[in-house]
Amino acid sequence: MDADKLRALLEQVRSGALDVEQAVQAMRSLPFDAVGDFASLDTHRALRRGFPEVIFGEGKSLEQIREIFLRLSEHSRTVMATRINAEQAAALLPDLPEAVYHPAARILYRHTPPAKLLTGIMVLCAGTTDIPVAEEAALTAELMGNRVERAYDVGVAGLHRLLDRLPLLRKARVLVVVAGMEGALPSVVAGLVSAPVIAVPTSVGYGASLNGLAALLAMLNSCANGVSVVNIDNGFGAGYSAGLINRLGQD
Amino acid sequence: MDADKLRALLEQVRSGALDVEQAVQAMRSLPFDAVGDFASLDTHRALRRGFPEVIFGEGKSLEQIREIFLRLSEHSRTVMATRINAEQAAALLPDLPEAVYHPAARILYRHTPPAKLLTGIMVLCAGTTDIPVAEEAALTAELMGNRVERAYDVGVAGLHRLLDRLPLLRKARVLVVVAGMEGALPSVVAGLVSAPVIAVPTSVGYGASLNGLAALLAMLNSCANGVSVVNIDNGFGAGYSAGLINRLGQD
Amino acid sequence: MDADKLRALLEQVRSGALDVEQAVQAMRSLPFDAVGDFASLDTHRALRRGFPEVIFGEGKSLEQIREIFLRLSEHSRTVMATRINAEQAAALLPDLPEAVYHPAARILYRHTPPAKLLTGIMVLCAGTTDIPVAEEAALTAELMGNRVERAYDVGVAGLHRLLDRLPLLRKARVLVVVAGMEGALPSVVAGLVSAPVIAVPTSVGYGASLNGLAALLAMLNSCANGVSVVNIDNGFGAGYSAGLINRLGQD
Amino acid sequence: MDADKLRALLEQVRSGALDVEQAVQAMRSLPFDAVGDFASLDTHRALRRGFPEVIFGEGKSLEQIREIFLRLSEHSRTVMATRINAEQAAALLPDLPEAVYHPAARILYRHTPPAKLLTGIMVLCAGTTDIPVAEEAALTAELMGNRVERAYDVGVAGLHRLLDRLPLLRKARVLVVVAGMEGALPSVVAGLVSAPVIAVPTSVGYGASLNGLAALLAMLNSCANGVSVVNIDNGFGAGYSAGLINRLGQD
Amino acid sequence: MDADKLRALLEQVRSGALDVEQAVQAMRSLPFDAVGDFASLDTHRALRRGFPEVIFGEGKSLEQIREIFLRLSEHSRTVMATRINAEQAAALLPDLPEAVYHPAARILYRHTPPAKLLTGIMVLCAGTTDIPVAEEAALTAELMGNRVERAYDVGVAGLHRLLDRLPLLRKARVLVVVAGMEGALPSVVAGLVSAPVIAVPTSVGYGASLNGLAALLAMLNSCANGVSVVNIDNGFGAGYSAGLINRLGQD
Amino acid sequence: MDADKLRALLEQVRSGALDVEQAVQAMRSLPFDAVGDFASLDTHRALRRGFPEVIFGEGKSLEQIREIFLRLSEHSRTVMATRINAEQAAALLPDLPEAVYHPAARILYRHTPPAKLLTGIMVLCAGTTDIPVAEEAALTAELMGNRVERAYDVGVAGLHRLLDRLPLLRKARVLVVVAGMEGALPSVVAGLVSAPVIAVPTSVGYGASLNGLAALLAMLNSCANGVSVVNIDNGFGAGYSAGLINRLGQD
Amino acid sequence: MDADKLRALLEQVRSGALDVEQAVQAMRSLPFDAVGDFASLDTHRALRRGFPEVIFGEGKSLEQIREIFLRLSEHSRTVMATRINAEQAAALLPDLPEAVYHPAARILYRHTPPAKLLTGIMVLCAGTTDIPVAEEAALTAELMGNRVERAYDVGVAGLHRLLDRLPLLRKARVLVVVAGMEGALPSVVAGLVSAPVIAVPTSVGYGASLNGLAALLAMLNSCANGVSVVNIDNGFGAGYSAGLINRLGQD
Amino acid sequence: MDADKLRALLEQVRSGALDVEQAVQAMRSLPFDAVGDFASLDTHRALRRGFPEVIFGEGKSLEQIREIFLRLSEHSRTVMATRINAEQAAALLPDLPEAVYHPAARILYRHTPPAKLLTGIMVLCAGTTDIPVAEEAALTAELMGNRVERAYDVGVAGLHRLLDRLPLLRKARVLVVVAGMEGALPSVVAGLVSAPVIAVPTSVGYGASLNGLAALLAMLNSCANGVSVVNIDNGFGAGYSAGLINRLGQD
Repeated sequence: MDADKLRALLEQVRSGALDVEQAVQAMRSLPFDAVGDFASLDTHRALRRGFPEVIFGEGKSLEQIREIFLRLSEHSRTVMATRINAEQAAALLPDLPEAVYHPAARILYRHTPPAKLLTGIMVLCAGTTDIPVAEEAALTAELMGNRVERAYDVGVAGLHRLLDRLPLLRKARVLVVVAGMEGALPSVVAGLVSAPVIAVPTSVGYGASLNGLAALLAMLNSCANGVSVVNIDNGFGAGYSAGLINRLGQD
Repeated sequence: MDADKLRALLEQVRSGALDVEQAVQAMRSLPFDAVGDFASLDTHRALRRGFPEVIFGEGKSLEQIREIFLRLSEHSRTVMATRINAEQAAALLPDLPEAVYHPAARILYRHTPPAKLLTGIMVLCAGTTDIPVAEEAALTAELMGNRVERAYDVGVAGLHRLLDRLPLLRKARVLVVVAGMEGALPSVVAGLVSAPVIAVPTSVGYGASLNGLAALLAMLNSCANGVSVVNIDNGFGAGYSAGLINRLGQD
Repeated sequence: MDADKLRALLEQVRSGALDVEQAVQAMRSLPFDAVGDFASLDTHRALRRGFPEVIFGEGKSLEQIREIFLRLSEHSRTVMATRINAEQAAALLPDLPEAVYHPAARILYRHTPPAKLLTGIMVLCAGTTDIPVAEEAALTAELMGNRVERAYDVGVAGLHRLLDRLPLLRKARVLVVVAGMEGALPSVVAGLVSAPVIAVPTSVGYGASLNGLAALLAMLNSCANGVSVVNIDNGFGAGYSAGLINRLGQD
Repeated sequence: MDADKLRALLEQVRSGALDVEQAVQAMRSLPFDAVGDFASLDTHRALRRGFPEVIFGEGKSLEQIREIFLRLSEHSRTVMATRINAEQAAALLPDLPEAVYHPAARILYRHTPPAKLLTGIMVLCAGTTDIPVAEEAALTAELMGNRVERAYDVGVAGLHRLLDRLPLLRKARVLVVVAGMEGALPSVVAGLVSAPVIAVPTSVGYGASLNGLAALLAMLNSCANGVSVVNIDNGFGAGYSAGLINRLGQD
Repeated sequence: MDADKLRALLEQVRSGALDVEQAVQAMRSLPFDAVGDFASLDTHRALRRGFPEVIFGEGKSLEQIREIFLRLSEHSRTVMATRINAEQAAALLPDLPEAVYHPAARILYRHTPPAKLLTGIMVLCAGTTDIPVAEEAALTAELMGNRVERAYDVGVAGLHRLLDRLPLLRKARVLVVVAGMEGALPSVVAGLVSAPVIAVPTSVGYGASLNGLAALLAMLNSCANGVSVVNIDNGFGAGYSAGLINRLGQD
Repeated sequence: MDADKLRALLEQVRSGALDVEQAVQAMRSLPFDAVGDFASLDTHRALRRGFPEVIFGEGKSLEQIREIFLRLSEHSRTVMATRINAEQAAALLPDLPEAVYHPAARILYRHTPPAKLLTGIMVLCAGTTDIPVAEEAALTAELMGNRVERAYDVGVAGLHRLLDRLPLLRKARVLVVVAGMEGALPSVVAGLVSAPVIAVPTSVGYGASLNGLAALLAMLNSCANGVSVVNIDNGFGAGYSAGLINRLGQD
Repeated sequence: MDADKLRALLEQVRSGALDVEQAVQAMRSLPFDAVGDFASLDTHRALRRGFPEVIFGEGKSLEQIREIFLRLSEHSRTVMATRINAEQAAALLPDLPEAVYHPAARILYRHTPPAKLLTGIMVLCAGTTDIPVAEEAALTAELMGNRVERAYDVGVAGLHRLLDRLPLLRKARVLVVVAGMEGALPSVVAGLVSAPVIAVPTSVGYGASLNGLAALLAMLNSCANGVSVVNIDNGFGAGYSAGLINRLGQD
Repeated sequence: MDADKLRALLEQVRSGALDVEQAVQAMRSLPFDAVGDFASLDTHRALRRGFPEVIFGEGKSLEQIREIFLRLSEHSRTVMATRINAEQAAALLPDLPEAVYHPAARILYRHTPPAKLLTGIMVLCAGTTDIPVAEEAALTAELMGNRVERAYDVGVAGLHRLLDRLPLLRKARVLVVVAGMEGALPSVVAGLVSAPVIAVPTSVGYGASLNGLAALLAMLNSCANGVSVVNIDNGFGAGYSAGLINRLGQD
């Protein structure tokens, strides 16, 4: 343990076993170890607050996921792996005790919910094909200890579907808004509320949607104040940011 | 005149001054002249209906614009030149009798309105900086014989501004919807009406608006039915299409 | 039913069971419900005019399509699902009474044609590989109550094929023009007619066609007046816009 | 006033001057007025909390800015206009009582700070040429009632400059991180803290920076959790989102 | 036959069976038929000179290819279908008498070579993976009646391989130069010869080759004079242009 | 002189003044000199045939242009500098005897036409704003010893203007076709003739023309056979390629 | 052998069997052969130094790879083929004596290490999914006679992982730094060392990573001095450049 | 001074003035200070070796440049500011003793050359308009203590100009190769030498050069081994990397 190592070294200085110049020399390599030390302390703090340990599953082998999942499970009550498809889940579940698979969100997780869930996060999406990304966001926030409100299929071409949810929207402390195609929903939502909006473009669309670039650009150019944006299909990132934001004033 | 040339040739055939094979030979080059002839006949028909003759001003010298404007004025009651800035207009107006300059729309025109204006066209824009493009569309439609409804600064971040105009929107037979930045307005409008919508992206914005590409892509990906799109800042094109559409059933 | 709810509330006001201030409070949430109400009334109007209810099939599961199709069939005489491939159609047809599958257009539909079809729509395409998109446009317009003229394989590299159809072209009230590769056909057509043209770029091509972007950009830059554009391969959108336009003056 | 109009109408129903069916008819247009009404109520709420009224100055004439600034000043203690250059400011200041110009942030504003400033926002930037965008973010947050910590010129090529500020970074509740060129700073910062990070790409760079697109893409692809992104050079947007977030739990 | 139709009509004029005005009316639709007529005459001329009839195979069904191939075979001694893979060829060959398949060029053809082949065309390619595109170019030119010189795998990273062929290069009247990756070969070749060069970018490469866009852009920016460019992987187009050019002064 | 140097060295070998191994060593550096030698011989050949020496003027200082122009004038009867604006020309002309400036083509040249001009090149352009690029192409070809046919303002939106020139088009041995916006003219022209077409996209257009990229992509995707393409606005390159092609069979 | 051919020719000159002018003529074609000769001499020199002969496996058939591998093995102690997948390797290994397959690096090679390995190269990568590209770089450098230090999974979101390796980093003479997503690692590393850094973007990421373009652009815009970049996923190219650099002063 | 601070703290531990636990606490913030300390030590090392201190001038005010230049001059014998235009230089020179301005390289510097210059760096460029970027690279390397060979205007369209320099090229230990337009020169050079090549794309070109992107992409896709690339027009970066590389084995 680095802090211990530091202590031992200081004891040697105190006892005279090491002179000051030798100690300075020995500490040359200390800073960076210490950064690591600081970081892990912080990790402990984060864990106490219910942050999940996260594995980005894409491009990893079954063995890699299994091993990391088990290792993280040793010191975290919540572990999640994103971008896991049904076949991978089926292969992994037998080896991962307490693990659960959420097929829409494509997340494999192990979770003991906290005694008290935070409220304040709402996840919206424009069309039914945006639901997997929205669920990835919602479940991520849930695994961070939140109760999440959902409003799906409320795209701007049928405005009444959205306006029907206005009272709910106005209650949220932070909103995740998911949309593909022209990506207009975050602008409309941000114009109706005074809470921060995390916009998630999806790759839903074809042709000039350019696999989600059209929605991404639209969201970055939102004429409404209070909108920030994450990568295409990055439901996890949006849910995580929402989780960080919603903790403010509640922990 | 080509039709006359054809007649003369046929008279020669009839009188025996030309035999059939000679006539076939002579007519080899006729088709393409005749296409030209047909085209100009059609032009005449168009003019009778009040279509303007249009000069795209950008990249043309003062002399070129002046000369074409005067030539077109000889056989058309409406002549318009688009993309004319204030300095060009000041230099041209003294030489162009009856010409008028519309600074917001940057159009220089000469126009005798028809006895009866058509109704049914509405032009909307999202922000005040979109107004020049919207005015280019509106004035173009007016010069085609329409009375045009306008609703400006009704962007989606303040939805009530748009919904206030809903009864007017629903009366329109065709709508031109102009927006920059995220270009979301056409989708919202098309979701509220059952008339065709011509969407015009503008270059209003910065950074990831990519000079209007973001708005253009958004509009092409509209999740609402009945939206078609013209080039960035192409108010003229949208106004012209709206003029063609609004004539249907009214001429 | 919202209008009924409003009526009930007003009855209470009239009877004195509710005082004015209580009613104002109760109506706070009304506007948005009412927008929904208004919208559905409008939907009814649209249905009476023969507008199809449309399901965008891409990215939806068989169960989702089946369920939505059946639900929409309950209150619409015309229901259509786009982007359905042959396998999906085969799986769905047994469960959807009266449904028909059009393989070229990839549309699954149920339709009772109106007593009188509207004329005026013409669909053209440049090459034989553009036909599926053209058929999607044509069938969409037909399901909106139109008789549609078709002229396929009339690309600009063989101009006579197009000019042969000139009299037909000139009769159309609105034209849908479909082309891939360099996307030149809409400009040529729009130069020959005085009706509005809806241009549809297709993803036909390779290399620098960039999956249809080359054709899309070409069409947006058309030097001919009266052209507006829809997304790449969006035959449905073009057919729908044409259907909205062709109704003008005929309903 | 719409709520009054509603009250009057209900009084008529109560008194029998209007029967229920007439009232339903009259309320057809009500919803959308009411949305507007609701919206302005909300605006009032926002103003009480110290939200500034904002004018996006780019593309607006001096007259437009002056007029809107004065109008907004009537019912808001804080008014700000962004993207105002020094010449515009010099021309506007004489007519705008109490207005102040911040040249680095290019913001013209009028502001009465609240009795108690919120703490928790930190703004960082990578290079000295990023400072104008960082200042736009910082001043925006200040005008929303915050005291803002700044750490400028702490780019990743000299990591110690950033690590020197680590204790300050860890105290922040939300961080705005501004960077041009390769846009790496937000990832490094987000890896060091457990607060949400709003990343702002700038157009600082040349060649393959593509006017800030390189930094934008980098930030959207951040491997660190808790990063969301705004448009290139959009310091205002980031400051505004940070302001919305930092209010949570403190109002 | 249109020319006959014209003759018949003129006979009627000559005999007085039709008066001149009736004839003018009848000829209204003639021009466009006549364009078609002219075009087919030209086609005949082209065929006499040994131009192949070409089917672009991509995106066509086996039935379509078979049918068009057989129809074209009726009046052309050379018929070729491009972009045919081995499976398609195997399925088609039994039904197409005299047809041959060239697997590298992916061309299915039927060809009777002319008595005398033209010389003067040389086809070069940079790497072995560019050979299929080069072969498509070479075979196309051969089917147009040329004897084609080939120099493959002569990329610029090993300049001596190219310089070894310099005498051959200098003899060519027109050169087709095929390259992927950085697409540098056409510039180097055009600097060594004084004949026109048709450059063909290929999609060979990965990452920033952007499927051949890098090579395409490089070739369009060639610093050497006399280079023109065709689409990515368009060996056919280059071979065809070379065939048209090489005919000059030899027919 | 390198060939002389080689001769001298061989004489030494012959006379025994140098042994073979010494000669081999001395020739180690020869190859590359010799390439230079060969190249200059070839240059001489080119000059005899009337090829111009060309200076690309863009980015060069007046002094650089003046000096190179004078140096090239020493051994070539034709010298041309492209991309020279009117101010540069005015400053350069006094120092360059016999030089002439063509303002539309922006070419400064010195030229003694050959006794006999070649015929066969035709230059077309779509709009009047494309004329400078077309003139650059035409004058380049003229300076290579050609008489050039021109047909300007024959864009595809008014097809009869093009078809009027059909007999002229069919006489050409090679055509340069210049167009901006949607860049459709080369496809239409190539469909009407059987000569090679060099297509030149221009930067004429706005918005989605992307400074000529739209036209460039369209031309690369031409559905007509026999089209090759040069860089945007590269009239010189097209004229030069046409000059190389038209020489075939005429020298 | 070309040098022999030259010698023979010179002998003929010396003996008088060939006169000088005949020899000059015969040497016309010599330069380019000689370039080839020079090149192969150089190749020999390279081989003596332990440079591998390299086959780019992508797009080549099994037969092609086998044949080239065997041919190169005849005169080189090290032969390597990149981009070989496991199936290809399994098929090839039986026929290639002494060949070894490295599955992570996807390299098939035959190698006799030199007596003394060079030290000084370090390869880092940001995430575990970047390892295949990093291994391709490391193995390439090893096959060039280097001992390679590795530090994997040291991405910037967990800075302590990198700082832990600082002493190792500072010892390197040249570093290869591999990263996907936002590609920030090379900037951070180059800021910590004073050795040259070769940056390798990988296609790891999704959405706005644009298959590695985001990382590539970031690296090209590095604010740290001493960074140069290779193509996306081009581990081989980076390893090779590092090998060339590390040889300096050690051979 | 941080190391002193550490010493003082350790003395207190040794003397018993501070117990171990207090010291651990005090050292919590030490690591990051220490990183800075380490970094500056390293900076000292770099300075001793003759590395210049560099100011990126673009976007900085005269005052900023002047102040940083003077400050850096206090502890470095070489200071350089890049991207300084002639007007800036004229304004700055009077205040900067010993400073010199190099107009082609746009670098303002102060430099005392070391006693012994390193040899081994060669800078090449393709055209005369690439010279400013090449000079920026060459002067940067010179300010790092190198004697630099230059070969300018040796583009691939006139290969003999390059081959003439082959013996010089082969002597270089590292080459910087600068080119715009199609960017082919680095591939050709890297094929001729066995030293590492740093390629610099320039923004020289027009149209499809996309301000240097075409050259950049070409260089990234080089088929020759040993090429790495820097940003467009980044002569400084290439010169700096070359300086780092050339030091290897010579310090």
